[in-house]
Amino acid sequence: MDATEAILSRRSIRKYDKEPVSDGDVEALLNAAMHAPSAVNERPWHFVVIKDRKTLEAISQISPTAPMVKYAPIAIVVCADTTLEKFPGLWPLDCAAATENILLAATARRLGAVWTAVYPFDERVEGVQKLLGLPAHIVPLCVVPVGHPAETPAPVDRFDRACIHQEAW
Amino acid sequence: MDATEAILSRRSIRKYDKEPVSDGDVEALLNAAMHAPSAVNERPWHFVVIKDRKTLEAISQISPTAPMVKYAPIAIVVCADTTLEKFPGLWPLDCAAATENILLAATARRLGAVWTAVYPFDERVEGVQKLLGLPAHIVPLCVVPVGHPAETPAPVDRFDRACIHQEAW
Repeated sequence: MDATEAILSRRSIRKYDKEPVSDGDVEALLNAAMHAPSAVNERPWHFVVIKDRKTLEAISQISPTAPMVKYAPIAIVVCADTTLEKFPGLWPLDCAAATENILLAATARRLGAVWTAVYPFDERVEGVQKLLGLPAHIVPLCVVPVGHPAETPAPVDRFDRACIHQEAW
Repeated sequence: MDATEAILSRRSIRKYDKEPVSDGDVEALLNAAMHAPSAVNERPWHFVVIKDRKTLEAISQISPTAPMVKYAPIAIVVCADTTLEKFPGLWPLDCAAATENILLAATARRLGAVWTAVYPFDERVEGVQKLLGLPAHIVPLCVVPVGHPAETPAPVDRFDRACIHQEAW
């Protein structure tokens, strides 16, 4: 799929088929994530791929905005090794760019995905850390459930000229 | 350009031709940015497009990692209206996803761009706010200079299997 089409047609997909997501597809999404830019090229990201139903259900319990995770064939937990961060406060931006790449790569492969926030909600961060056995310095940014879409929302035109300013505010 | 190719071939471009960037290209990049996902669909972003040489030079003075901005035909300052944020701490993630879309849309259009950090560096945030007349609640995340590339670094394979974990840490 064309890059512009992927960017403009990406929607949050919260309903998935029973069809599994292939290991090749998962690897393609993670490869996309790892090609995001990062501050000083620190690439602080780690990814936990979850297929176990009990773990997926537990994530839905931990995060009130992630009820669909328990119905997804897989989920990717995007994390950062905060000890790799060269300046405080940059890892969430690096991992956000990586997450956007996952969403776009999913769109390009006709998969459905959605960004469900973990960070900066302390209870969710601690819950996911405990669930997945993450060391304290590995902080989860978000959980991205991925599946073959069982809903196909139309693209939405979000262009808003009021957000554009020339030369100054 | 194919979406996967754009994601995998994107590089930080810091050298630009004298050739101007068309208004149509700028609008395409901003349209891509506005189609990023955002928490609770809050879309907190604002964009300041800068072509004025004095302002571009001033940004290079404010931000030590943005020397190339003064040589770029244009720069986009990605900002957030923090009063639109429904939960504290989410706007930088929304704006990071929007910035990644700008970089990918630039790659797809054979333009060169690079993310130069403003937030979370207080001195840079305040310097850019003052320079552009941004109200206190409008916070700049980054400055993205854009131009026709005068360097063409080869794609780099950043896939790292050590960053992938199955089911748990």
